[in-house]
Amino acid sequence: MKNRRRFLAFGAGVLAGCKKAPDSESGAHMRVYGERAPGETSARWILELSASPGTGSSRTPLADLYGTITPTSLHYERHHSGVPAIEASKHELVIHGLVEKPLVLTMEDIRKFPSFSRTYFMECGGNTMGEQRGNTQPDVQRSHGLLSGAEWTGVPLREVLKAVGVKPEAKWMIAEGADAGRMARSIPIEKVMDDALLAYGQNGEALRPEQGYPLRLFLPGWEGNTCVKWLHRLQFADAPAYSAKETAYYTELGKDGKAQIFTFVMEARSVITRPSGLQKIAPGFHEITGLAWTGKGRITQVEVSVDGGKTWAEAELQQPVLPLALVRFRYPWTWDGKEAVIQSRCTDETGFLQPTHEELVEVRGSNSGYHYNAIKPWRVGADGMVTHV
Amino acid sequence: MKNRRRFLAFGAGVLAGCKKAPDSESGAHMRVYGERAPGETSARWILELSASPGTGSSRTPLADLYGTITPTSLHYERHHSGVPAIEASKHELVIHGLVEKPLVLTMEDIRKFPSFSRTYFMECGGNTMGEQRGNTQPDVQRSHGLLSGAEWTGVPLREVLKAVGVKPEAKWMIAEGADAGRMARSIPIEKVMDDALLAYGQNGEALRPEQGYPLRLFLPGWEGNTCVKWLHRLQFADAPAYSAKETAYYTELGKDGKAQIFTFVMEARSVITRPSGLQKIAPGFHEITGLAWTGKGRITQVEVSVDGGKTWAEAELQQPVLPLALVRFRYPWTWDGKEAVIQSRCTDETGFLQPTHEELVEVRGSNSGYHYNAIKPWRVGADGMVTHV
Repeated sequence: MKNRRRFLAFGAGVLAGCKKAPDSESGAHMRVYGERAPGETSARWILELSASPGTGSSRTPLADLYGTITPTSLHYERHHSGVPAIEASKHELVIHGLVEKPLVLTMEDIRKFPSFSRTYFMECGGNTMGEQRGNTQPDVQRSHGLLSGAEWTGVPLREVLKAVGVKPEAKWMIAEGADAGRMARSIPIEKVMDDALLAYGQNGEALRPEQGYPLRLFLPGWEGNTCVKWLHRLQFADAPAYSAKETAYYTELGKDGKAQIFTFVMEARSVITRPSGLQKIAPGFHEITGLAWTGKGRITQVEVSVDGGKTWAEAELQQPVLPLALVRFRYPWTWDGKEAVIQSRCTDETGFLQPTHEELVEVRGSNSGYHYNAIKPWRVGADGMVTHV
Repeated sequence: MKNRRRFLAFGAGVLAGCKKAPDSESGAHMRVYGERAPGETSARWILELSASPGTGSSRTPLADLYGTITPTSLHYERHHSGVPAIEASKHELVIHGLVEKPLVLTMEDIRKFPSFSRTYFMECGGNTMGEQRGNTQPDVQRSHGLLSGAEWTGVPLREVLKAVGVKPEAKWMIAEGADAGRMARSIPIEKVMDDALLAYGQNGEALRPEQGYPLRLFLPGWEGNTCVKWLHRLQFADAPAYSAKETAYYTELGKDGKAQIFTFVMEARSVITRPSGLQKIAPGFHEITGLAWTGKGRITQVEVSVDGGKTWAEAELQQPVLPLALVRFRYPWTWDGKEAVIQSRCTDETGFLQPTHEELVEVRGSNSGYHYNAIKPWRVGADGMVTHV
C-alpha cells in the first residue's frame, strides 16, 4: 500500500518542483470513422493546370510526414481530366484484343481472384521536372511531392489473364481509364506478366476516388502515369497505342534533341524532407531525415553530407528495407549555427549512385525534366532559414 | 500509325461483342485532404459501456479490410473515460519519481529526439473475452475487432530517459493518461528500456484523438491497455502502482480462482476474416484469408482446416512477415456447397501452437477471458451462410 499511497499523492507533492498537471478533459463520444485532431492541418498542395476541374496535381506534404506510409488522404495525385465519380457496383473492366476469350469483369468478379498485398512507392514521372531546367521550388512538398508510399492490394494481373488467354503475338497491353479524357498507356507484356497488379485496395481499405476508385493498374517501380486510374479497359496488341500521354507527354527530349519514349522505370533517388525548404531551425541537435526509393529493387545505402558535398556519412535506414518501397533514412546532426548545405544521396542494388544536378545535366541535357533524380541540396542560413540551393 | 488507328477505332468495333463502354464522367476538383468514396461505408462497431460519453469500445471491421495496415480511421479503440480534446501545443509530459533530474517535456521537445518507426499490431487484452465463458458474437468484427495494425512513429523511451537519469532502484514505471479518469498502468523497467516508444505518429501522420493524441505510450506486443493514451506522466518507482486497471481489470482469474496480474504479452493467435460470420458465400472458388499475430516475435506458420479440424494445410503468408506485426494469410479453397467448418491456427517462433477452445479452457478454466487466443471455427451452412460455431 505504501506505493499506492505514493502514487496517489503525486498531485500534491512531486510536481511542486515542476509545472502543474494538465487539466483533465471530459470525454467525447466515439466515431464510426475517425478524423484528425482539429489542430492538425497538413494538406496537399494543389496546382490546377486547366480551366476544367480537377486537372493538375496535388502534392504530398513530405516535410510533415513520419515513417514510410503516406496517409491515404495525403497521397499525391496527378489528373489529366479530373476525378470521375464511379459506383463500384456498376464498374466493369473489359479485356480484349489479342486474347482467346474477351472478358468483361465486374468488381465482384475481380475481388474473387486470389489477392496480393505489398508496400510500394509511387512517383510521378514528372516529379521535380522543373529543376532539370533550373526552375526551383521553395519547399520539398512542391519540389518532390509527387511521391507517396502505401500498402496496395489487388489481384496479380497475370492470374486474371489466365482466364482470357493472351495470344503469343500480344507484345503490348493498352490500359485505359474511365476519366473524361480516357487516359491510356501502353505497357510491355513482360511487365504485365511480371508484377502488374489490378489494385482495388490501398492502406487496408478501398481505393479513394482520387487514387482510381474502384480499380487501378499498379506497376511497381514505374512512373505513376502508367498506373492507370479508374481502369476500365485492357487491350492486348502487337504494338503500342502511341497515346498522347506516351508521345506528347512522359517522353524525354535528350541532349541530342531526340525524344526517348517508354522510359518507364523510376531510377534511384533520395531527398531530405526535414530540415527542408521554408523551415527554420535553431542551433543544436537535429535529426536529418528523408526518403529514398528506386524502381530497380532495393536501396542499399543512403549517405548524408552537411558540408556541401565535401564529405559524406552513412545514414541509418528504417527497417525493414523493402524493395520498390519508400525507405526512411535518419542521420543525427548538431548544427553549429553557421551556414551549411545539407543533402542526401542513395545507392541501389544495381550499384547506381544518385547523381548531382551537374552530372545529370551533363548526360541528359536540360531539354526535358521527366525522371529527374538528382541530389537535392538545401542551404541552412546563419539565421536558421532553410532554402533551395 | 496503323496501331494508333486501331486503338482509336476501339469504341466502334472491338466492344461490339462485349458490353458498351462505361460512360465517362466529368471531373471533380481536387481536395487538400482526401475522403472515401461515397459508396464505401465500412465502420467501427461502437459499444458504449457507460452513461458517460465515449466510454467503451469501437471495433475494427476486420472482414472488410485488406493487407496488414488498418486505416487509422478504423483503428480499434477502448476508452475508460472518453476521448479528451487536447491541444498539442499545450500538452506536456512529466517524468519524475526515482530519477536524477525530473523533466517536463513539450511535444516540441519530444519531436526533437531521434525518431523511430515500425509496423506493429495492437490488441486489447480483453479481445474476444466472452468466448472463454462460452459467450459468442455473430461476426469477426464484434468477436475479434479489438485488434489493429499500423506503422507507429515516436521516440524510443530509453533515449529520452538518458536525459532524466533513471535511478537503479527504479523497477517500475507508472504511466498515466490525461483522460478524465487518469488511466494508469505500471510497466516493468525491462520493457521500458527495451522497445517502449513515446509515439506521436501513426500511419505517417499525427496520432488521431482516439489513439491518444498527441502522445501515447506504445509497448510492442503487449496488451493495448498498457499503451497509455494522452500520456502526460511517467513516474519511476520501486514497485507497481496497483492501479484499478491492473488489479480490478486486466487481471486473469485462473482455474484455481487465483488472480494473475501483469500478464502483459499477447500470445500467438490467428483468425479467418473472410469468409466469416454473417457473410454468405456461393459454391466455387474462395480465397480464405485472415490475420495472425504474436507478442512474442514472429509468426512462423499459419495452417487452415476446411474439414472441422481433421486435416490442416499451410496457408501463404504475405511477405515480409514482420515481428510483432499483423500477418496476412491466404489459402485457396473451392467450396463444394456442403456444410463445412473452416478455421486457422498459427505457430510463432517460440514454437507455441494456437490452442483449441477446449485446450485453452482445460488449462485456464473459464472464470476470466483476458488474453483469450483460441482457434476460431466458422461454420459454412449448406445455404452458404457463415455462422459462429
